[in-house]
Amino acid sequence: MNLNISGLTLPYRQAKPRNYGLTIVIDNGLPLQLFKDTIRSSADLVDLVKFGWGTSLVTKQIQEKIQCLQEHQVEFFFGGTLFEKFVSQGKTNEFYNYCKRYQCNFVEISNGTIPLTNIEKAKFISEFSNEFLVLSEVGRKDGDQSEAQSSEEWIEYIQQDFEAGAFKVITEARESGTSGICTRNGDIKLQILENIFSAEIPLTKMIFEAPNKKLQTLFINKLGSNVNLANIPFTDIIPLETLRLGLRSDTFHIINKIEETTI
Amino acid sequence: MNLNISGLTLPYRQAKPRNYGLTIVIDNGLPLQLFKDTIRSSADLVDLVKFGWGTSLVTKQIQEKIQCLQEHQVEFFFGGTLFEKFVSQGKTNEFYNYCKRYQCNFVEISNGTIPLTNIEKAKFISEFSNEFLVLSEVGRKDGDQSEAQSSEEWIEYIQQDFEAGAFKVITEARESGTSGICTRNGDIKLQILENIFSAEIPLTKMIFEAPNKKLQTLFINKLGSNVNLANIPFTDIIPLETLRLGLRSDTFHIINKIEETTI
Amino acid sequence: MNLNISGLTLPYRQAKPRNYGLTIVIDNGLPLQLFKDTIRSSADLVDLVKFGWGTSLVTKQIQEKIQCLQEHQVEFFFGGTLFEKFVSQGKTNEFYNYCKRYQCNFVEISNGTIPLTNIEKAKFISEFSNEFLVLSEVGRKDGDQSEAQSSEEWIEYIQQDFEAGAFKVITEARESGTSGICTRNGDIKLQILENIFSAEIPLTKMIFEAPNKKLQTLFINKLGSNVNLANIPFTDIIPLETLRLGLRSDTFHIINKIEETTI
Repeated sequence: MNLNISGLTLPYRQAKPRNYGLTIVIDNGLPLQLFKDTIRSSADLVDLVKFGWGTSLVTKQIQEKIQCLQEHQVEFFFGGTLFEKFVSQGKTNEFYNYCKRYQCNFVEISNGTIPLTNIEKAKFISEFSNEFLVLSEVGRKDGDQSEAQSSEEWIEYIQQDFEAGAFKVITEARESGTSGICTRNGDIKLQILENIFSAEIPLTKMIFEAPNKKLQTLFINKLGSNVNLANIPFTDIIPLETLRLGLRSDTFHIINKIEETTI
Repeated sequence: MNLNISGLTLPYRQAKPRNYGLTIVIDNGLPLQLFKDTIRSSADLVDLVKFGWGTSLVTKQIQEKIQCLQEHQVEFFFGGTLFEKFVSQGKTNEFYNYCKRYQCNFVEISNGTIPLTNIEKAKFISEFSNEFLVLSEVGRKDGDQSEAQSSEEWIEYIQQDFEAGAFKVITEARESGTSGICTRNGDIKLQILENIFSAEIPLTKMIFEAPNKKLQTLFINKLGSNVNLANIPFTDIIPLETLRLGLRSDTFHIINKIEETTI
Repeated sequence: MNLNISGLTLPYRQAKPRNYGLTIVIDNGLPLQLFKDTIRSSADLVDLVKFGWGTSLVTKQIQEKIQCLQEHQVEFFFGGTLFEKFVSQGKTNEFYNYCKRYQCNFVEISNGTIPLTNIEKAKFISEFSNEFLVLSEVGRKDGDQSEAQSSEEWIEYIQQDFEAGAFKVITEARESGTSGICTRNGDIKLQILENIFSAEIPLTKMIFEAPNKKLQTLFINKLGSNVNLANIPFTDIIPLETLRLGLRSDTFHIINKIEETTI
């Protein structure tokens, strides 16, 4: 980065490997050269790549993509919907083999689509955390089911997942930003955030899906430059970093919050 | 594809060259290397490329793009609006020469913008089908005109086009998915689909423009994995294939329908 | 371009270097190869590149991007928000040095985010116009503040900027097209256009931000093929040129207006 040559005073950002301020991008099937080009152009800004839902299965060059990530110290995992697809066909072992074949360090365990109770999900977290760093996801993809989840349930599930061995917990928002932790019109359910604070869950352990600028802006203005954000489109890597640094109108007056309040 | 290594049971998809389950993508002027990168990364998933409206005229490297498609067994055609531009200036011969110069096997004949009756359009279909495979398009681009078209007229025009020699008929939806076969708020006019069924027009002969995930999902959930879809953005090639295969939340419970009902 | 081989009659467009009909694209942090690929594929169609807001600071290969532009006779400048960031920290000299370091010919001077009066802005325009071609921007980014600006104020500020030495004046619309010269629902505030005409400000001196197809279409249909447009996404370069040329449904019946009315 050229930040130091500018003379500007900017918010603090850890260098990689980072414990907080993570940027997790989602690959929804980029062509190979564009994928490599993006990673090479901004590897310092990206901590993990999620191969969204089942896209890895129809990506001819998934092996080359993974190799590119390994060369640039970027971790990766397969989207939770793929895990759920295997579970729905009673093929958890095949999922395990699939992750091993690609030498995953991380797996995502979710119940966003299939009717899996959080207790059943926690069992999977417990098993997989013996061999992987587990990112568990809380929140439903379906708008109606998502509306029905109380903020107390959210906290209960988050804590259950941590007790089962989850490395970090991700809050669902989909690519559209209109279900999970979001209301139908794309705002954040603030009561859930309040309850996360009240329950004294460290913000560094939480990851918030923020698939668009509106949500990225809301989370950064609310939780600071170094909030962990996921489902970031490949095209938003640099724009997101400028939001974190107060270099865009939307977060122009940002101050670092996560350090002050939680570390 | 890596599908066979996963151990999952997935919907059936024909290999190329396919008669149904076609994916027709629209190039709206991609830079050359990105175009090639995308085609190379997923040529198995793409049947035809449409060079949208008049973009081919302002694309310096149109010849290189076409060559790339030929190398990967992907067919192509120029958008119907270009045909209409030539017609509006009384230059049908020049359009014919333009298609011949680029060795097109397919042409699109439409009346989405200019005031051409379907009977006049059918004459063009008849002429051009002597030397090309004609994709004819039914439906108006303008929202008001589109609203005014009854579902009976749709069926009449579709049948007229087939009688004139159309290879397949495309239903208009634009890039926005808010006119043609779509309502202003982006849903599908279901009565038109019902009438297509009643008229016993084979679904394999129909192609539906589905420029966004919402429409792709609606068509696949309604008509099955192997519905023919067009106006697919280049960025949606792999996402669409996962929708067809039930590897994304939106079509998680998909079963193959087109085989059962129409073949 | 292949226009001349088509046989179509199309609106007149100046070749580069152009005085009007400018297309100014915004780079929001494209990966390097994609950036180069786009410029190489359509350098004839692009007059200037804006490195949006503070993205240049977090772009590792900004020097390579600039070199690519120089090779293709495309000018560039840094987004006004970056200027405002420096001003907000009392570091105007550092901004000057930053622009000199990258051999900018153009700078953008704006007050879209910070509380800088137009008179204060005009002083900066006056200073910087000694060494740079100054693009000044009129209009607020914030929706409420933007609503509060009368069309008389717009004209006053535009004229102040020209008197201070601005090369051309840009009207704000953001990336979303919902503030500045736009209403909240993305239409153009026509009264401002009327007042620009009444004040006899030449259209060739004005640049309109038009970040989406809807706005591009409105400006072209209203002001002709050769209206100067800015904040054009990299993906819209060829689509915009087809709008200018009447090769897309939305502007199918376009006639050249800017020549007739203002030159």
